[in-house]
Amino acid sequence: MMKKLNINLSENSYPILIGNGLFARLFDEIYKRRNYGKILFLVDGNVSRIYRKQIIELIDGYFTGKGLDSSTIVKILPIKPGETSKSIETLSKVYSYMIDNNFGRDSLVVALGGGVVGDLAGFAASTFMRCVDYVQVPTTLLSAVDSSVGGKTGINFLHTKNIVGSFYQPKFVLIDLDFLKSLNKTEILCGAGEILKYAFMTGPGFYSFIKKNIDKLLTLDNVVLTKIIVECLKIKGSVVESDEKESGLRKILNLGHTFAHAYESVLEYKVKHGEAVAAGLVCAVILSRKLSLMDEALYQDFINFLKQFTIRKSFNNLDKQKLYSAMLKDKKNRGGKIKFVLPHSIGELLVDVEADKDDVVYSLNEFENVVFS
Amino acid sequence: MMKKLNINLSENSYPILIGNGLFARLFDEIYKRRNYGKILFLVDGNVSRIYRKQIIELIDGYFTGKGLDSSTIVKILPIKPGETSKSIETLSKVYSYMIDNNFGRDSLVVALGGGVVGDLAGFAASTFMRCVDYVQVPTTLLSAVDSSVGGKTGINFLHTKNIVGSFYQPKFVLIDLDFLKSLNKTEILCGAGEILKYAFMTGPGFYSFIKKNIDKLLTLDNVVLTKIIVECLKIKGSVVESDEKESGLRKILNLGHTFAHAYESVLEYKVKHGEAVAAGLVCAVILSRKLSLMDEALYQDFINFLKQFTIRKSFNNLDKQKLYSAMLKDKKNRGGKIKFVLPHSIGELLVDVEADKDDVVYSLNEFENVVFS
Repeated sequence: MMKKLNINLSENSYPILIGNGLFARLFDEIYKRRNYGKILFLVDGNVSRIYRKQIIELIDGYFTGKGLDSSTIVKILPIKPGETSKSIETLSKVYSYMIDNNFGRDSLVVALGGGVVGDLAGFAASTFMRCVDYVQVPTTLLSAVDSSVGGKTGINFLHTKNIVGSFYQPKFVLIDLDFLKSLNKTEILCGAGEILKYAFMTGPGFYSFIKKNIDKLLTLDNVVLTKIIVECLKIKGSVVESDEKESGLRKILNLGHTFAHAYESVLEYKVKHGEAVAAGLVCAVILSRKLSLMDEALYQDFINFLKQFTIRKSFNNLDKQKLYSAMLKDKKNRGGKIKFVLPHSIGELLVDVEADKDDVVYSLNEFENVVFS
Repeated sequence: MMKKLNINLSENSYPILIGNGLFARLFDEIYKRRNYGKILFLVDGNVSRIYRKQIIELIDGYFTGKGLDSSTIVKILPIKPGETSKSIETLSKVYSYMIDNNFGRDSLVVALGGGVVGDLAGFAASTFMRCVDYVQVPTTLLSAVDSSVGGKTGINFLHTKNIVGSFYQPKFVLIDLDFLKSLNKTEILCGAGEILKYAFMTGPGFYSFIKKNIDKLLTLDNVVLTKIIVECLKIKGSVVESDEKESGLRKILNLGHTFAHAYESVLEYKVKHGEAVAAGLVCAVILSRKLSLMDEALYQDFINFLKQFTIRKSFNNLDKQKLYSAMLKDKKNRGGKIKFVLPHSIGELLVDVEADKDDVVYSLNEFENVVFS
């Protein structure tokens, strides 16, 4: 069964398709929109290793079924897994590949992978020949619940996360739940970080649902997973619809991310973004209580809940001064004070909260106490 | 006296200000729009050499007059003159400079120079932090009559012109005619190429005006110059207003450009874009007659007119096969046949005209006969 959500924007609205076995329908979805001359698959190296044969069979099958020769039309470029691929070097490789293979304005880029591939592919598509179309086919929980939707694209530069990028919406997002079956525990945790973010952003219903079904989420139960993905994307969709280019409201999606980006930077991107988001959420909850913006009972409830998600030892015993400096360098705080998005109660967030250095450092220390002691 | 034109788009409309001594009003124009935290001037190296002191005095004067300290706010980064600066390396330098100097979302980029600086600055602004504002202050005739308006930004990559870029409109365009006073003959010819393009695109009035005032244009007479700039930008504005992202009509602005880009590529960008456009226009006129799309009398009139603009010897005795191959690689022809925009009569252009290789090569040969014999 397929679920369908729509992201309605003034220009460039698009659907999100969610279900099992959807990847087999990819080319139908593509060609019912436009008769693209060339298609470039940017594929996460791990995904490519597992699914390359399936992708090629799918391509061959589609074209053979229509009596066409696909050999010159569809290309697959594997992208080395990991955050380091969100670089100007990898971007240059993508441009070169497209130029060498004579990609024109009637090209389509397909992002098949997690957030790294999605962000890179979206940015390449938004800038190649002043833009060609792209679609998102997320294969990780994090990209399925968050990064594949909303049109934020980008790469890192000079150790600064997402400092170069664009707002550029995909033509559609196709979420085949079967891809998620191969995810390991760390990957699930990565998605869980963003899912919890959404749980904090909406009413008590979704928060309770996740609490009750936490085991099923961690074991990727199909029904629970579908419900959670749909709910997260509904929230994200409504935020993006009212503030596509982050002039205001969209900021709330950065809950936990100021801390998260600092962890990623200090840990030199050797942890995954989603893990850092999970850690960042814990810090945000702690900071909120420290600033008396959250009551004690709720604080305990949040913390007990968050503790169920195992956070790696790499996040322990870090240099707090370094973390604080990294926050000052974060894209959102450049040239000013650090502004946080903090949870107030379930479904209520506070934005642009300024905090003293002491309180931030307290939160970083307390995070380690809470999580690792 | 200042002239004002408006470019009216569904989003991001903006004014063009044209007149003498307008540069002195730059900061007033900037700050009446928004209170930017940081301003980066990307300045053509030649302009910087001539005007650096004046820019600094202007900045100091503005801030001192308001009792403010400007030292940490406004930065000037000179850009090496020439097409080779439209590169991913120079772009990376701009990003690095902005990151190192802690530029945030409330930044403004000012492009002070010709088309190279304008295209580079616009692209940097459209991608730094997923976009910051920019303004165009053209200092060449070509950028004043053409490239500063319309929001096409970009860099070259792998010898392919403008293959990476965006459609991104400036907040305003400020054309101070005083900058044009220091232009040499080659620079004037560069602008003339694009001006003639506009003369071919509109009714006989403007064409006659230019023919009658050709000497005054070449000596940069203030009244004639103003009239010509205003007319060109009116035409360009109306085209951009109906087709901002070049899905159809905007193609007509590429008159002469298929040939021009081939000349630039084969001559390894050692000629200026405007010179190549002038040469490309002659080729387009020749090809149009060869394909019987233009009558003989008009052909002679055009050619006699175009011959008044001296084209450099570097355009003579070129390898026609190389030029033809370069056209096949042009961004607009990728993966297909070469499509030309050709003049039919004054004010009437034909788009998407396909031509046999023989006719194209004939035109390249005939160009050399007409211009250099």
